[in-house]
Amino acid sequence: MPPRRPANRVQFDVVELIAKKRDGGTHSAEELHALIGGLMRGQIADYQMSAWLMAAFLEGLSARETVALTQAMLHSGDVLRLASVRLPKVDKHSTGGVGDKISICLGPLVAACGVAVPMISGRGLGHTGGTLDKLEAIPGYRTGLDARRFERIVKEAGISMIGQTERLAPADRRMYALRDVTATVESIPLIVASILSKKLAEGIDGLLLDVKVGRGAFMKDLKSARALARALVDVGTKSGLRVVALLTDMSAPLGLTIGNALETREAIEVLRNGGPEDTRELTLRLGTEMLLLAGVEKAAAAARRRLEAALASGAGLECLARMVRLHGGDARTVEHPARLPRTRRRLAVHAQRGGIVRAIDPYELGRVAVALGAGRTRADQAVDPAAGIELAVRRGARVARNEPLAWLHVTGGDPAALVDRTRCAFTIGGARPRLPALVLERWPH
Amino acid sequence: MPPRRPANRVQFDVVELIAKKRDGGTHSAEELHALIGGLMRGQIADYQMSAWLMAAFLEGLSARETVALTQAMLHSGDVLRLASVRLPKVDKHSTGGVGDKISICLGPLVAACGVAVPMISGRGLGHTGGTLDKLEAIPGYRTGLDARRFERIVKEAGISMIGQTERLAPADRRMYALRDVTATVESIPLIVASILSKKLAEGIDGLLLDVKVGRGAFMKDLKSARALARALVDVGTKSGLRVVALLTDMSAPLGLTIGNALETREAIEVLRNGGPEDTRELTLRLGTEMLLLAGVEKAAAAARRRLEAALASGAGLECLARMVRLHGGDARTVEHPARLPRTRRRLAVHAQRGGIVRAIDPYELGRVAVALGAGRTRADQAVDPAAGIELAVRRGARVARNEPLAWLHVTGGDPAALVDRTRCAFTIGGARPRLPALVLERWPH
Repeated sequence: MPPRRPANRVQFDVVELIAKKRDGGTHSAEELHALIGGLMRGQIADYQMSAWLMAAFLEGLSARETVALTQAMLHSGDVLRLASVRLPKVDKHSTGGVGDKISICLGPLVAACGVAVPMISGRGLGHTGGTLDKLEAIPGYRTGLDARRFERIVKEAGISMIGQTERLAPADRRMYALRDVTATVESIPLIVASILSKKLAEGIDGLLLDVKVGRGAFMKDLKSARALARALVDVGTKSGLRVVALLTDMSAPLGLTIGNALETREAIEVLRNGGPEDTRELTLRLGTEMLLLAGVEKAAAAARRRLEAALASGAGLECLARMVRLHGGDARTVEHPARLPRTRRRLAVHAQRGGIVRAIDPYELGRVAVALGAGRTRADQAVDPAAGIELAVRRGARVARNEPLAWLHVTGGDPAALVDRTRCAFTIGGARPRLPALVLERWPH
Repeated sequence: MPPRRPANRVQFDVVELIAKKRDGGTHSAEELHALIGGLMRGQIADYQMSAWLMAAFLEGLSARETVALTQAMLHSGDVLRLASVRLPKVDKHSTGGVGDKISICLGPLVAACGVAVPMISGRGLGHTGGTLDKLEAIPGYRTGLDARRFERIVKEAGISMIGQTERLAPADRRMYALRDVTATVESIPLIVASILSKKLAEGIDGLLLDVKVGRGAFMKDLKSARALARALVDVGTKSGLRVVALLTDMSAPLGLTIGNALETREAIEVLRNGGPEDTRELTLRLGTEMLLLAGVEKAAAAARRRLEAALASGAGLECLARMVRLHGGDARTVEHPARLPRTRRRLAVHAQRGGIVRAIDPYELGRVAVALGAGRTRADQAVDPAAGIELAVRRGARVARNEPLAWLHVTGGDPAALVDRTRCAFTIGGARPRLPALVLERWPH
């Protein structure tokens, strides 16, 4: 792990720095600290940063450079220590998928097994949802707490889930805002530095990365997902973190719900020892890795048994209720999920022919959910907590003509076109599809 | 020549446009017009333009794209027609060198041979000088005339030399300001579009390009200079212009003077049928090409004879005097160059050993001239018209110990260090150097 450096106070020539990356050169740690420090102090203009970002996008950053960039971004703001929390601290980060509500059941479940989970999450954008939006479907739940409250709740409940604060990795926010409007988002080193700088700011010991692969994910194919997982593990490890990455399937929506309250309800069902099989299983697989990363169990089988026990006993559910209460939320929703926001209308989407559900397009359903109001296409849009899609069938199921494929939970507008789009997201045929494994790969192997 | 298009009024996604170039895609003419139109209308932010510029720098632009970009930049402002000027209109553009005062003798000489020369020039920056600064060494000479005055003077004197106006190719000014601070200057397609959009705005029929090659030039080696020349000729021709490019030597300063009034004086000497051999010869070589481009002569030998006659008769000198007068300048300086600004001090730089002058470093002398006040390192600096360097010897000359190599024309400050730097710019040895040809190549061949 490179030494923590103060922001560079030496004069430097930003144009030379951009030219160096443009020409395929390798930056020193000092140069990257000067770049990020200059950005934060207003010595580097946005148009210079975006030129550098494009050069970095096209010419790449080595692992060493990515480590140094991560450190510079991390130290652009506060770094939490969570000194009062004595338990091992482990977090999970997902690269985002459709129907991915896992954090909401996984976090409390792992916390119930003796691991502290200080989780800072984001909002949904585009076709994927965000944990913050799902938590805010719980009436009263406050995601905007400061670092002191965050630490106190982690200590008391074993878990706290909040949103990004102004003071943690502010350079990442500046850079992401620029990347978003300059076509420099999809760069593995820039993604890695963005994710890890924010996660390192949480003061964690271990990090589990859920790298989603498939049409519903950011990474559409195994090759690019593998490259991202490898870089995350490599740079994270070099930054002094214990890191494991799982590549998990996102070729269909996860679970049976897409939409904020709907997904929160499904996560609660998992903690009630129920829920859809894939959601429960992925929760257990990810939880096993987190218990191993925390060192509270040495063997995967024992870790899994402990998690299953916490599901059966309701200890995970209790942990969620405690966290919700400490965040100002209505904890009765955890006992009675029917208290979560619901739409008045529920429109069935019927199959126009019978057969076997061969595929369910997660990208298209994610976009339908956005159109229903469950998500956003611009960062400043509000979301409708109740809106969303509930699937009636899973991949591989047999449906008869006119049987429901899904229900749209609709608050307003005319969703006739959305009913059609939802129907078209289902591929119905004669033969059973080959279902991919839930977990495709693990890094390190 | 592509059709003149109005600025694109259709909605477009600038992020997609940046991503297309980032991924090595090829832009349509519509996209490039949308890009430039969006920049000028404020729909595209500077940080987006600079990301696109870096993508274009690294991924390149095809000849077709460069033609379309040139057209979009050209039509970002007014395009002169010079309808009242009946003579063929030809201009010359130099990529910039040390001691390059050729425009000031070449323009009037060519105009004296029946060619209209509507010349819009720039200022010096860095180690190279600019024609505007040299003209402004003539007391009273106004370079900031509007298009109507410009046209009237071209009609009356056959030549007018002014500075870039706000209304001609304004997109180039915006883009150049960004390129200068984002390490995206040295891109051949971007240089080509910048030069040609400004030159096409002059409403000319033909353009001669003097692409300088060597240490004193922008292009340091033949390969890169050739690539620039080829692109300029290709894109210029496809833009409907008659274009010829000469690659000329810039491995030593041109002529015997560096500095504004000094160079103007030397140009006047050429028009008086004198001046240093290389400056006179290059004027004749470039003038021959311009007469051929204008079509006023069909054969090079005849063109040269016509130019030599205009030098001998003083017709070129008269043309300069007429232009200076119409620009509000003191035309007596043309008859009596001693009236040009002079410094009070003139410091000799002596040889510390005898021998043959094997090399004179133009880049270093260009920088000494800037330090003397003759040039600028930032676009907003003023220049000293009188300051500069006068060479006492040329490459290949024999000098004795303590003989002068050069004189510094000094207005203020302590130039002891500059005397040493000037001395070190001369390489003195035992063997005669092989002198490069003045004109290295011609494009098209």
